[in-house]
Amino acid sequence: MSESKQITIAGAGLVGSLLSIYLSKRGHQVSIYERRPDARKNLLDGGRSINLALSDRGLQALAKVGLEERVLKEMAIPMYRRVMHDRAGNLSYQPYGKEGQAINSVSRAGLNMLMMDEAEKHGVQIHFSHAASEIDLDSAAAVFKNEEGQSKEVKGDFLFGADGAFSAVRSVMQKTDRFSYSQEYIEHGYKELEIPAGPNGEFLLEKNALHIWPRGSYMLIALPNPDASFTCTLFFPMDGDPSFASLDTTAKARAFFEKEFGDALNLMPNFDKDWEENPDSSLVIIRCYPWTRKGKVALIGDASHAIVPFYGQGMNAGFEDCFVLDRLMDEYGDDWSGLFEAYEKERKPDGDAIADLAMRNFVEMRDLTGDADFLLQKKIEGRFSEKYPDKWTPLYSLVTFSPEVRYSEALALGKRQDALMAEIMALPNIHQFWDSEEVEQKMLALAERL
Amino acid sequence: MSESKQITIAGAGLVGSLLSIYLSKRGHQVSIYERRPDARKNLLDGGRSINLALSDRGLQALAKVGLEERVLKEMAIPMYRRVMHDRAGNLSYQPYGKEGQAINSVSRAGLNMLMMDEAEKHGVQIHFSHAASEIDLDSAAAVFKNEEGQSKEVKGDFLFGADGAFSAVRSVMQKTDRFSYSQEYIEHGYKELEIPAGPNGEFLLEKNALHIWPRGSYMLIALPNPDASFTCTLFFPMDGDPSFASLDTTAKARAFFEKEFGDALNLMPNFDKDWEENPDSSLVIIRCYPWTRKGKVALIGDASHAIVPFYGQGMNAGFEDCFVLDRLMDEYGDDWSGLFEAYEKERKPDGDAIADLAMRNFVEMRDLTGDADFLLQKKIEGRFSEKYPDKWTPLYSLVTFSPEVRYSEALALGKRQDALMAEIMALPNIHQFWDSEEVEQKMLALAERL
Repeated sequence: MSESKQITIAGAGLVGSLLSIYLSKRGHQVSIYERRPDARKNLLDGGRSINLALSDRGLQALAKVGLEERVLKEMAIPMYRRVMHDRAGNLSYQPYGKEGQAINSVSRAGLNMLMMDEAEKHGVQIHFSHAASEIDLDSAAAVFKNEEGQSKEVKGDFLFGADGAFSAVRSVMQKTDRFSYSQEYIEHGYKELEIPAGPNGEFLLEKNALHIWPRGSYMLIALPNPDASFTCTLFFPMDGDPSFASLDTTAKARAFFEKEFGDALNLMPNFDKDWEENPDSSLVIIRCYPWTRKGKVALIGDASHAIVPFYGQGMNAGFEDCFVLDRLMDEYGDDWSGLFEAYEKERKPDGDAIADLAMRNFVEMRDLTGDADFLLQKKIEGRFSEKYPDKWTPLYSLVTFSPEVRYSEALALGKRQDALMAEIMALPNIHQFWDSEEVEQKMLALAERL
Repeated sequence: MSESKQITIAGAGLVGSLLSIYLSKRGHQVSIYERRPDARKNLLDGGRSINLALSDRGLQALAKVGLEERVLKEMAIPMYRRVMHDRAGNLSYQPYGKEGQAINSVSRAGLNMLMMDEAEKHGVQIHFSHAASEIDLDSAAAVFKNEEGQSKEVKGDFLFGADGAFSAVRSVMQKTDRFSYSQEYIEHGYKELEIPAGPNGEFLLEKNALHIWPRGSYMLIALPNPDASFTCTLFFPMDGDPSFASLDTTAKARAFFEKEFGDALNLMPNFDKDWEENPDSSLVIIRCYPWTRKGKVALIGDASHAIVPFYGQGMNAGFEDCFVLDRLMDEYGDDWSGLFEAYEKERKPDGDAIADLAMRNFVEMRDLTGDADFLLQKKIEGRFSEKYPDKWTPLYSLVTFSPEVRYSEALALGKRQDALMAEIMALPNIHQFWDSEEVEQKMLALAERL
C-alpha cells in the first residue's frame, strides 16, 4: 500500500469524478473544486439533454471501480448500428461491429451525477461553485473563489487539472517556458435540436441506432434518450453558404431543413423554438505538452486533449486516462514524479491519435456514409473480419471495441488497412464480385502485409 | 486624406516603432505603451549584442518612411555569403545571391533606438515601463500599469498589439470564441557566445559573411558587429545527447567545443564566462487567427506570427506587415473594418509560409550546408539562374531579395523547384558534368514546368 496523499482535483466533471473515485479507493484524501453549482440540486440546463456514446474503453475504466454494470443497466441505450437517412427519407444501415456489439447512448448529466454520488460515498469532498483563481505549479497549492468572492487556499500534495477544454490549470502552465499548446477551432459548429417521444411514449425512429443524415460537408445526427426522445445535433459550417451565418432567419433554416432533412423535420414540432434558443456552439481541438509539471501537477481528460465529438471518444479517452494512470500507480508506488512522467509519455501519442481519428471520422460520417463505394468497402472488411477475426479488425472496432489496442496503434494500423483496401476497391467490377472467393484470397494475401 | 484617429500601440519594439512612424505620417495621433524601460537611457543588457539580418523586405518597409539609407549607412554590415567551417577548420563558401546582393547584420538594440528617436520626431508619444493589465477588445481601450502600480486608462479608436511573441493583447484575444492559436516550442534552444575583435581592432573572421559551423543536428553561427566582434549563437537541442542538459558543466562544454568547433573556440577568450552567464533560451513558433477583432484591435509582427530565426526573416516579416498595412490603407481609407479584414486575410498565409520556411532553413543550415550534394545543387541553380534570370530564381533569393514575391508564393514555388532539382541531382555522374550543356538543356526543359 502506498502512502496516503492529499490530492486536489480541479473539476467535478466526468473525468474529475472518476479520477477521484480511483484515487480515494487507493486511500488518498481527495478534494474536488468545481466551478459550477451542484447539478444534482439545480437542473440548470432546463432538462436539455446532451448525450454521449459510451464504449469499451470507457466501460473498462468504469468496470475497474465497479460501476460498469450499474451504468449500463440504469442509463444506457445500446446502439448497434448506424442508420443513414437520405434526402428522400430512404434508409440504409451499417452495423458498428459484430453481432451484439454496440456503443451506448448515455446522458452526460445523468452519468456525471451518478459518479459524483459514488465519489462522495468514497469520502471525496466536492466543493461546488468554486473557481480556480490562483495556481502555484511548484507547490500544487491553489486558491479557489466562491460566488461571494470568498477565497479558499488549498494546499495538497498533488493537483490534477480535470477542468476541461478551457482548463484554468492548463492556462497557468501555458505561460511556462517550453509548454507547447494549440487550440484549433474547426470551421464547423453545432446546434442541438430535439425529436420528442411519440404520442404513446414511443420512439419515432429506430431506437437502438445512431441516426445520420449525411450531406457531404455537413450532417445531422440523432441519439436516443431513455424517455424515447432523440437528441439531434446539426454539425454545420459556421460561415459560408450554407452555414449558421447564412441561415440567419428561422424561416430560412426551416426551408433548408425541408429540403435536406425532411423526414427529421417532420418529427421536430419544436424546431422553430429550438433553432432560435439553442446556441450555435463552436468545436475546438486542444493539444498540449507536457501534461505534468515537476511531479506535482497533472492535466487529465479534455484539459490535456480536447477533441471533436465525431468518434464518440472524448469521454472514453478521458476515462482511459484514469485507467492508465491507475495501472501506472501499481508500477510506480510512491514515486509520483516517475508516475507523472510515465503517464504523459504513454498517453500523449494516444491523445494525439484520437484527435486525428475524430476528425477523420467526421469526414466519414458526413460524407462517406452516403457513398456506395465506402459502404461496400466496409461490407468487404466486415465480412472478411468475421471469417478471419485474427487477421483483420476494422479500424472502427479497433478504436471502439478493442481497449487492449492503443489509439495510436489503431490509427497506424488503420492507415495500413486503408492503403490495402484501396487495392481491393480498385479491382474491376468489385461491386459485382465483392463476395467472391477471388476477393477473399486477395484479401488474405494482402492482409499478410499488415 | 483620411480622418485622423487616436491610435494606441502596445509595444515599442522594432515593429511597434515602425508602425507608429507609418501611422503618424498619415496624420494619426499615436501613443505607444512599452513594458520595458527606455533602452536609450538604461543599457540593460550590459552591451550584450543581439544582431539580426535585415534584408530586402525590411529595407523596402524602411524605405517607404525614408529610413533605409540611414540604417544601411549607420549600422549595417553587409554579408555577401555563407562561410561554412568544418571540424578541421576548413572553409567552404556559398554566395547568398547574385554579385553584390547581401543580407545585413544590424544590432537589434541600435536599430530599435534609431526608430524610437524617429517615431518621437514624428510626434509619437512613447510611455515606457507601462505593462498592459486590462484590454477591452470591443472598445480598443486598455489599462497600462507602471512599475509603481499606477494605472493609466487609455481610450483610443484603435489598438495594435505589437507586443511580441508573448503578446498581452493576443492573450486576451485567445480567450475569445473561435480564436485559433498555437505555441510550439522546438526541441532546440540557443545560447549566445562572443568572438571579440582582434588585438588591433580587426575582425578575426571574414567580416562580410555569415559564418556557419554546420554539424548535422545542431550548429553554431556568427554575425559581424561594427566593433569588429562577432556575436555567435549555438543552436542546440535542449535535451538528449548532446544537449544543453548533457553539457552540464563548463568543462564538458569546453571539451565539446574543442572537438566540434575548435577554430571558433580558439577565438573565444570569454567562453567559460559566456557559457555560464548566458541563458539557454528556448525557441517558439506562434500561430494564431484571426489577427484582428471587430475592426478595433489588430495584432502585428511577432504577436501574430513569431517564427524561429533561421531564415533571418522575423524582423523583415514584421516590417513587411507594416508595409502591407500601409498599402491597404491607401485602398480602404476610413473603412478600418475593411482594412483590418483585408490585412489579416492577405498576411496570414504569408506568416504561415515564413514560419515553415524558417524551419526548413534550419535543416538546411545545420545539416545540408555541410553536404556536397546540397552545395552542388545550389551551384547548379545559381549558375542557371544567372544565365536565365527570368526562368529561375532560387528559393533563398525569392524569400530574401524579392519582396515583390509573397512568402506564400515563394514557398509554393520552392517546393516545385525542389521536385525538379531532385530529377537533376538524380542524373548519373552529376558531380562530373554539372556544368555541361546537357544539364543546362535539361534544366531549361524542366523549368517550363514551374
